[in-house]
Order: sequence, then C-alpha cells, then structure tokens
Amino acid sequence: MRVRATVAYDGTRFHGFAENAGVRTVAGELVTAITQWLHAAERVTLSCAGRTDRGVHALGQVVSFDVPVDTDLDEMARRLDRRLAPEISVRDVRRVPDDFDARFSATRRTYRYQIWNRTSANPFLFQRAWHVPEPLSLPALRLACDPFIGTHDFTTFCRAATNRAGETLSLTRRMHHARWSTDGDGLVCLEIEASSFCHQMVRSVVGTMVDVGLGRRHAGEIMGMLAARDRRRAGTVAPPHGLYLTEVGYEGRDA
Amino acid sequence: MRVRATVAYDGTRFHGFAENAGVRTVAGELVTAITQWLHAAERVTLSCAGRTDRGVHALGQVVSFDVPVDTDLDEMARRLDRRLAPEISVRDVRRVPDDFDARFSATRRTYRYQIWNRTSANPFLFQRAWHVPEPLSLPALRLACDPFIGTHDFTTFCRAATNRAGETLSLTRRMHHARWSTDGDGLVCLEIEASSFCHQMVRSVVGTMVDVGLGRRHAGEIMGMLAARDRRRAGTVAPPHGLYLTEVGYEGRDA
Repeated sequence: MRVRATVAYDGTRFHGFAENAGVRTVAGELVTAITQWLHAAERVTLSCAGRTDRGVHALGQVVSFDVPVDTDLDEMARRLDRRLAPEISVRDVRRVPDDFDARFSATRRTYRYQIWNRTSANPFLFQRAWHVPEPLSLPALRLACDPFIGTHDFTTFCRAATNRAGETLSLTRRMHHARWSTDGDGLVCLEIEASSFCHQMVRSVVGTMVDVGLGRRHAGEIMGMLAARDRRRAGTVAPPHGLYLTEVGYEGRDA
Repeated sequence: MRVRATVAYDGTRFHGFAENAGVRTVAGELVTAITQWLHAAERVTLSCAGRTDRGVHALGQVVSFDVPVDTDLDEMARRLDRRLAPEISVRDVRRVPDDFDARFSATRRTYRYQIWNRTSANPFLFQRAWHVPEPLSLPALRLACDPFIGTHDFTTFCRAATNRAGETLSLTRRMHHARWSTDGDGLVCLEIEASSFCHQMVRSVVGTMVDVGLGRRHAGEIMGMLAARDRRRAGTVAPPHGLYLTEVGYEGRDA
C-alpha cells in the first residue's frame, strides 16, 4: 500500500534532499531508515514534493512510498522518528490511494524565507536565516511582490532545466501569493506560494526583492526582468540557509 | 574606564561560560577577542552576571571589563561581533561607573527554560529545548511554582558550594517569580527570576516542576523538599540545553 509522510529537517548538515551517492542527504537517510525498518530486500523508492537544495530546511516536506499492506503506520512513524538523526523528524504517516505521488499530486508549495535584519548577528539564527545587516524597507519589499504574482515564465529567476532526454523544460509557473512580515524585533519573513517552483526560484526571487528592499533596484524593474527571460538579468540569489519548505497542498481526494 | 556589554550565545559547542584552560568556553573566546582587539599585553579580566554551565545558552548575559579611556565603544562592539564565532554576539557596549561589576552589581537574573512537548522531536529545537514526549499538565506545572516563590534556603535544589577558603556558602535566595506558558503548538516555557541562582538551581527546580507536570510527584511535596535542605531529596535535574539566561537587572545608577 502507498503511504505519505510529513517530514521536517534542519538542512544544515545535509547535501540537499535528493539521494546522491557518497554524500549525506535527507532522502538517503530516510530511505535507509525505512528500508531497514521494513527489512526490505531493495531500497525503497521515495517521491517528494520539493527537492530542496543543500542547506535548505523543511517544516512540512511531503514524501510518498510503498509499504506492505499489514504495516502499522503509527508504530512505523514512532520507530522511524527514533531511528533517524535528531535533524530529521517524521510525523503524520498515513495511507493514501495507490496512484498518489507526493510530487505529481501536489498542487501548491509554500516556502518561508527568514532574514535577520539587525547589525549584530543572532547566534540562534546562524545557518537558519540570512543575516542582512543593512536596514530593509518593508514597504519596498512589499512593492516588489506584486510583479511576481500570477502566471509567468520564470526563466530569469531559475536555473535552466532539461529532462533526461536533454529537452528544455518549461519554466512557467503560477505564483499565488507572496507576503513579507516582521516580528518587529529583527526577524523579517516572506511567505510565498506557487503551483510549484523551479530550481533556485525562491532564492532568486527573494534576492531580487531584497535588492529592492535595500534600495539597490526599483520594484518597477521586475516586470522587465521577467519579460527578458534571461538568466543573466537576475539579481542577487539569496543564500539557502534562510529557506524553509513549510507546506505542500493537495486537492480533492488527496487533500 | 569600565564598560559593560550584553552578550548572546548558543552554548551548544562551549564547555560553559567560565574560562577553563584547554577547553573552548564563552569567556575564553570573549577575553581573547577583546585582548587582541585592544592589543593589550595581558589578558583582560572579565566579570559576568551568570556563570552558565556547559550547554546552557544566553540571550542577555552581561559582562564588565576595563578598556583604555579613549576607546570607541561602538567601533569595539562592531569589531568584536565580527571577530567572534557566529555562536557569540556582542551588543550594547557602554561605559559604566568604575566600581560597576557585572556580577556583584546585579540585583536580579531572569532565565527561560524551553521544553518541546510533542511525541516527535523538533529538529529546530535540537540542543535548544528539552524534549519531553509525554504530555505535561500546564495547571500542574503552575501549581508547582508557588512553593518556590519568596526567600528560601535552596540547599535541596543546588549543588553544594564552598569558597576558596573551603567555607560553605549560603544557598538562601529570593525567588521573585516563576511563570509557565505555552505557544499551544508544542513549546512550553518557564520564565523564572531570582536575586541570583546557585549552581544547578534553575535546572533542579525545573526538573522537579516537570516531575509534578507529569504526575510523578505532587506540588504539595515541594515545601517539604525545601525544608529538608538535603540535596538527596531533589527530583530530576533538567538538562542544560533547554536553559537560557535572558536578562540581568541592575538598580539605580547601574540600571
């Protein structure tokens, strides 16, 4: 039977989510733990909603995989959670229809981007937020959101992508919302949701927004950057350690 | 001239605050950074408001030390902050009267103790909160605060202390307040303030309160534990990594 699980992880000491021979990855640790717990002969195949890069964190990554029909899912969740490193946590393992796929069934992904906006660094946000010591303008950050909302070709704001056959993939995505907020005490956060994100898209969008928030660029330039569909027109790329995959949305039967 | 500085640190990778030959400590790193920045011939002498143990964190530790009269304090704060490891941050360096002492001038210390109270671990609170997987009763935790408030001999709740001459030191302290709160989402916190705390006192008090919160002990037993003045009567000692020195108070001229 197929199951889905919600996974949180501190990405600091992982080389990204996806399995990659010879380096420590989140999927590598998960697949090893699941395979060992199931005493399976072959490594379990895992699908995930968002392949986060090295250093990126997750509060609500979703994965799907198959287990024998008689598996006790609550027991599995508890055992996996104990078996995994403290940097990974597994919650909410439940049965889903056999054609559910954590990646292809997902209709929206929500990310949070955290910035520490004080002169002196915050030891508790080291590798968990981007430290921007110069003061950011929240109204400017908010103005920089509008041009991104809606359906756009995000070629300027993504790394080029090809499939295994070498064909160029579409970089058109629908952005649902993007909202900056602050706790008034140094922490500045973006919540951003889209149908899906292409590679480096959140970090590229955030970097350009921060350019605007620091007065290095005007919000009015963003429409032209999008229209250019030229990676060379991109602004700053925000570092990975401020980024968190917070939630993945599914529709109808899969919700 | 004498200065005081507010220091925040993630205590995870330090062997406590106090200087200790051969191991990495917060004071060791601070004194080295200050001494090097001042190009001083001898290591600077540092006084601190609370000698936190190995693994304990601080948001508002206060230290005092002497610098030449012409020192630019804003410049010094910026330079020290950059020179120190990302786990230590220095803020708010300012001149104080020459007889100010971060330890002896302080009239109150406030600590926070963080507990993660969910079955599955929180990767973002690893080494930053005590993971208690069994459900805690907030009303019981609150009942367990009352007997500690006021002036008491805390011998049961402290490690025995002697001065350099081998004389036993008083373990009588005045506790001003102790309040448990929750964010409703798994995080349970205690804010606790006293004139000062003796060695292991917060962790020992928290551990006993948690015994009450888990139903392993009754709040009504605490008065008897205090009256016994017997370390062997103490309950659980909470682990250091949930503890944060948040604020130090000074009165009158030193406030």
